[in-house]
Amino acid sequence: MMQDHVFYDCTTAPSPRRARMFLVEKGLTVPTEQIDLRKGEQLGDAFRAINPRCTVPALKLPDGTVLGDNASIARYLEEIRPDPPLMGRTPVEKAIIAEWNAIAESEGLLAIAEVVRNSLPGLKGRALTGPRSYDQIPELAERGRTRIEQFFDTLDRRLASTAYLGGEAFSVADITAFVAVDFAGWVKLAPNKNQRALIAWRNALAERPSARA
Amino acid sequence: MMQDHVFYDCTTAPSPRRARMFLVEKGLTVPTEQIDLRKGEQLGDAFRAINPRCTVPALKLPDGTVLGDNASIARYLEEIRPDPPLMGRTPVEKAIIAEWNAIAESEGLLAIAEVVRNSLPGLKGRALTGPRSYDQIPELAERGRTRIEQFFDTLDRRLASTAYLGGEAFSVADITAFVAVDFAGWVKLAPNKNQRALIAWRNALAERPSARA
Repeated sequence: MMQDHVFYDCTTAPSPRRARMFLVEKGLTVPTEQIDLRKGEQLGDAFRAINPRCTVPALKLPDGTVLGDNASIARYLEEIRPDPPLMGRTPVEKAIIAEWNAIAESEGLLAIAEVVRNSLPGLKGRALTGPRSYDQIPELAERGRTRIEQFFDTLDRRLASTAYLGGEAFSVADITAFVAVDFAGWVKLAPNKNQRALIAWRNALAERPSARA
Repeated sequence: MMQDHVFYDCTTAPSPRRARMFLVEKGLTVPTEQIDLRKGEQLGDAFRAINPRCTVPALKLPDGTVLGDNASIARYLEEIRPDPPLMGRTPVEKAIIAEWNAIAESEGLLAIAEVVRNSLPGLKGRALTGPRSYDQIPELAERGRTRIEQFFDTLDRRLASTAYLGGEAFSVADITAFVAVDFAGWVKLAPNKNQRALIAWRNALAERPSARA
């Protein structure tokens, strides 16, 4: 229990789910405050004073420092609680995990966010996270759908030859990609039945306690 | 000298420049092959066999493993050559550097790439990197310009209180942001004269040997 930290969360959103899963995999629990994204609480003065980027997850450290994204939170937790390692053991393993985590972010989560934020009526004027309002771009939503299909293919090809994205051990890259695959469900996209390696990996991950986080 | 590695580069492109700067800061030199992005060499069969994502930088390791992006290359080099550290010393410093590196990627490089790739006539059909062709979306180029201005503001506010983005020590986050600021010059965007902290930081970084990489 990290009683001297505060975790800022929103249980319905994919981005903080990555951090929640990471915490569960590390066996850590942290006092948590919910920020209601549907009510725009992340844009209010109170939360803006905590994280000026107006996004969750965020993690307040004992000295008052606030870590404001998944990159920093994962790195911090990996350093203070090295076991089990979620970011690799050897230099090559660490590098490959970093690469697959980046792929899951840029080709997965980002593409899905492009679809969600540029098409859902409730997100008009919220095409990007953060304090500033951006209009939706319908062509971007359309492009994102193609990219998601490519992303599923990329995962399936990789997982046909390794148990996990980073290799033989479960890692943060699996968390990011798993959250992305679930997030795609928001716009009714899912792996197709021929993507067997992807589906098997997803089903195996769904059995981990962290998947319920 | 890392004689048993191969670095795949393109001297005119911003993305491999990040890896080149990282290598210089570490005091490492690697046998290098140029991939001519202007001639589309990254999409040819020869390079596709090396990096199926068709992007540079890439780094081939002695065992044949290919690291295919900046995330993996930086992590690998930091592990095999820890000094000088470019990704932090303490858990908090490592986390803050990871966060600013992610900001420089998602709010800087990505926004600039959106402008460049969605507006330059020579990049028609190449609105995203990688093997697949994507049409330009003019609205995305326009949105990117606004985002770049915001990014400069974000950097300037941060650098008004710290010498480097990650704190008191130069890091990979500075490399990423420095490359981004130069890359913005491709579409004639630059910090304005009131962004004094940003300009002072940029001028200081331009004096480092790695800035010529």
